[in-house]
Amino acid sequence: MSLTNATPEDAAIAAKSASHVLATLPASARNDALTAIHAALTDAKDEILAANARDLELARKAAADGQLKDSLVSRLDLGKKGKWEDMLKGILDVRGLEDPVGKVTLRTKLDDGLELERVTAPIGVLLIIFEARPEVIANIASLAIKSGNAAILKGGKESTESFVAISRTISSALEKTRVPNGAIQLVTTRDVIPQLLALDRHIDLVIPRGSNELVRYIKSNTKIPVLGHADGICAAYLEESADPKIAADVILDSKTSYPAACNALETLLVQEAALYAAFPAVARALLAAGVELRCDGRSKGVFKTLNLLDGASSGSVKDAEDVDYDTEHLSLVLAVKTVRDLEEAIYHINTHGSHHTDVILTSSKEQAEQFMSGVDSAGVYWNASTRFADGMRYGFGTEVGISTNKIHARGPVGLEGLMIYKYKIRGAGHKTSDYGEGEGQKRYKHESLPL
Amino acid sequence: MSLTNATPEDAAIAAKSASHVLATLPASARNDALTAIHAALTDAKDEILAANARDLELARKAAADGQLKDSLVSRLDLGKKGKWEDMLKGILDVRGLEDPVGKVTLRTKLDDGLELERVTAPIGVLLIIFEARPEVIANIASLAIKSGNAAILKGGKESTESFVAISRTISSALEKTRVPNGAIQLVTTRDVIPQLLALDRHIDLVIPRGSNELVRYIKSNTKIPVLGHADGICAAYLEESADPKIAADVILDSKTSYPAACNALETLLVQEAALYAAFPAVARALLAAGVELRCDGRSKGVFKTLNLLDGASSGSVKDAEDVDYDTEHLSLVLAVKTVRDLEEAIYHINTHGSHHTDVILTSSKEQAEQFMSGVDSAGVYWNASTRFADGMRYGFGTEVGISTNKIHARGPVGLEGLMIYKYKIRGAGHKTSDYGEGEGQKRYKHESLPL
Repeated sequence: MSLTNATPEDAAIAAKSASHVLATLPASARNDALTAIHAALTDAKDEILAANARDLELARKAAADGQLKDSLVSRLDLGKKGKWEDMLKGILDVRGLEDPVGKVTLRTKLDDGLELERVTAPIGVLLIIFEARPEVIANIASLAIKSGNAAILKGGKESTESFVAISRTISSALEKTRVPNGAIQLVTTRDVIPQLLALDRHIDLVIPRGSNELVRYIKSNTKIPVLGHADGICAAYLEESADPKIAADVILDSKTSYPAACNALETLLVQEAALYAAFPAVARALLAAGVELRCDGRSKGVFKTLNLLDGASSGSVKDAEDVDYDTEHLSLVLAVKTVRDLEEAIYHINTHGSHHTDVILTSSKEQAEQFMSGVDSAGVYWNASTRFADGMRYGFGTEVGISTNKIHARGPVGLEGLMIYKYKIRGAGHKTSDYGEGEGQKRYKHESLPL
Repeated sequence: MSLTNATPEDAAIAAKSASHVLATLPASARNDALTAIHAALTDAKDEILAANARDLELARKAAADGQLKDSLVSRLDLGKKGKWEDMLKGILDVRGLEDPVGKVTLRTKLDDGLELERVTAPIGVLLIIFEARPEVIANIASLAIKSGNAAILKGGKESTESFVAISRTISSALEKTRVPNGAIQLVTTRDVIPQLLALDRHIDLVIPRGSNELVRYIKSNTKIPVLGHADGICAAYLEESADPKIAADVILDSKTSYPAACNALETLLVQEAALYAAFPAVARALLAAGVELRCDGRSKGVFKTLNLLDGASSGSVKDAEDVDYDTEHLSLVLAVKTVRDLEEAIYHINTHGSHHTDVILTSSKEQAEQFMSGVDSAGVYWNASTRFADGMRYGFGTEVGISTNKIHARGPVGLEGLMIYKYKIRGAGHKTSDYGEGEGQKRYKHESLPL
C-alpha cells in the first residue's frame, strides 16, 4: 500500500500493474492480508483516534463558522460509540465472506479435448472517492483485497489526518503480506478528482461514497462506469384493495424509519378508488408521525370530506407543486398524488422516479405481479417496506453501494458487483479451420458440463 | 416500428416508453413478432433486393471514383450467394433461442412470508450504430425483440435505400403484433450520431457494428456504456516445452484462417529457450502460408543460424519496430518478440495487448494455468486457436459482439449480455423497524431457496 504524492496517472498505472498480481493470489493470501490489517489497526487505535481528533477540531471550528454542516462533523467522528469497533468487525466480516474469485459459472465441451470454462475474475482497478467518513478506507480496502481488485482511494479534505493515519497503518501491515505494494493507492494530493476521472484507460470502475451531489458530479464528469446512484426517489402505489393496516405499516416504515436514506419513500400514488378506502388510515398514521403531506387537489379533498385534521395536523397537509413529484426530499415530507389506475401509476414511476425501489400496496396478486413486471426499477416490492433495499438485509453480507445502473449490477451490490469473468479454453492443438458445415469437417459438440 | 425523422431525443424518449411495455410481453408475443418479420421479409424479397441494387450502384460508382473501399461495396451486397437466406434463417434461429427474460437467478427467504427474488429483465433501450451491412437491421431487430429491449437503429449512408426498404417491411409486419410501435426506432436523419451519443439519460447501451474506427469514435464520444471492442491485438506465447506440431497448427490457424478478424493473432512471444525448440517449425509453417514476420533481433537470428530462408521467403522476415507490438495488423503480418519467461510474456500481453484473446503453447499444465490466471483478457487459452473466440463457437447460438469491457459482459456476448436483473420482494406488510439486534427484535433468516 502506498501513500502517494505521485501524479494520478502514475498511481493508476501502478494500481493496474499491481492488480494483475493481486488477481492471481489465492484466497488465503488475500484473507491473511485482512487479518494483518485488522491487527495493525487494533494496535494503532490511540494514534488514529488522536489524528481523528485533530480533524474533528478543525471541522468543529468550520461548522461553528457556518462553513461545514454539523451532520458532516458527526460523520467524521471515529470515536463515536461503537464506530471504531464496527470498523474493525467489518474487516473480519469481509474476510469471512465466500471467496468471489475463480468461481466457475459455465463449462462447455466444445469438442473432444476442447473445453470452455467461464471463471469469475476481479474487475481490475477501482477508484473510490469518498467524503467525510474515515472508516470507509478500512471498509473499501478490505472489499478490494477480498475481491482481488486494486483500489485508488481519494478522501475528502475534512478527514485528511484520519485518512493518513489509517492509511499508514494499513500500508505497513500489508508490507508483510503477499498483496503487492501498489494494490492500494492513496491519493492525498488535493483537487485531483477531475484528473482521476479522466483516466478511463487505467481505471475500470468508480465507486463514490458520499452525498448525492458528489455522485451526480462524478456521473456527469467521467466515462468510467460509476457504481451507485445519484437519487433515490422511491414511490408507493396504494391500490384500492390494499389492506389499510398493511398499507399504513409499510408506508410509515418506508417514510419515517430513516428519512435521509436513499431507500426512503418520497412519493405516494393513491388510486382514486383507494382515496376513501385505505388512504385515510395511511394518512392518519403519517400525520401522527409528523410527516408533512404535499397533496394534489383530490387527495387533499379527502381530509376535508372526512374531517381528518385537527389543530395540530392541519398545517401538515399542503398543496403539492409539480416539482415535489421529482424531488428526493430526504426529510419528513411526502408528495401525494391521485392516479386512475395501475397503468398510470407505473407510467408515473417510470418517468418521475429514479429506478431505485418502488412498492405496491394491494391484496391482488395480479395487480402486484403486473406492477413488479412493469416498473423499471432495481427493486419492485409487494406489501413490503422500500427500506429493505440494502445489501445486509438482502443477505449479501456487505454492501458496496446501491446501483441504479442498467448494466452490470443493479440494486444493492455485494462483492459480486466487483467481479467480472474470463473465458478459459483448454485444448490440444485445436484449430477452427477443422470445423464447419462442409464434408469432412468436424461439428461442435456444445455439451454443457457440470460445474 | 417507426421510421422516423423525429429528433434523436424524441426517438429515444419514445423508445424508452415502448421498452417499458415490451419488457412485460410474454415470450410468445415476442416470438410471434419474429415470425411476422420473417414472413414479411420473405414476401418483400424482390422489392428489398431492388432497393439494395440502387445502393450498390451508387457504391460501385463511389468505389470507381476511389471514394469508397471495394470491401465496403462487397459487404453492402444483399444479393451475394446465401446472404439473404442467412439473414432470414438468423431470425428463426434467434426465435428458437431460450427466452432470456424473467429467469429467476436468486431466491432468498428473508423471513417468514418475506421472499426476495432476483429476475432477469431487459436492459431498456439499445442504440445500434452500423455501417454498410444492411442485414444487420434484421439481425439486431430480432435480438432486441427476443430480449425485450427497445432499439434505436442508425445505419450508414451507403445502405440507406436497403435500410429503408427492410425497415418499412419490418415496421408493417410489427403493426399486427403486440410489440409496441415505438420499440424499434429507425433514425434516417443524417449526421445525428453525436446527438444520439449524448442521450445517456434515455439510452442504456450502445452497440457499434462496424469498423474499428467507428467503435473507437463511439467509445471516445459517449458516456453511455459501449458493448464491443476497438482493437483485437491477440498474442500467443510459445513456451519451451510446446509441442512443435500443436504450436504450428494453433498459431497458423490463429494467424491465417481469417486475418482481418478481431480474434486473429497479431503478436508471437517466443520464450528464449523455445527459439531453437518449437519456434523453427512454427516459423516455417507461417512463411509457407505467406505470413510476413516482423522479428526482434534474437528471433531473427534463428533464421540465419538454422539457414531457414530460401529465395522465396527471405523477403518475408523483417525487423520489427516498437509500434509493431501495439498494432492490429489485420493482414498476414505477425510481430515476433523474444521474452525470457512466462512473467515477461504476461507483462507484455497485459501492457501491449487489447485484453481480447491470448493463448499459451506449452506442454506444462502449471505454466498454462499460471498464464490463464495472470493474463487479463476476455479469453485465455491453452493450446487452442484464438479464433475460437466467437459466440457461435462458444455455443451461445448468437453473438451480439465481442466485448473487452471490464464490467457487465466480456468476451463473445450472447443474448445474456442484453439483460440485467431486478429484485422482487413479496411480503405481507413487513417493515424494517421490526428487525435488529435488540431485544424483542426479529432476525433475518436469509435462507437460500431453490430456483
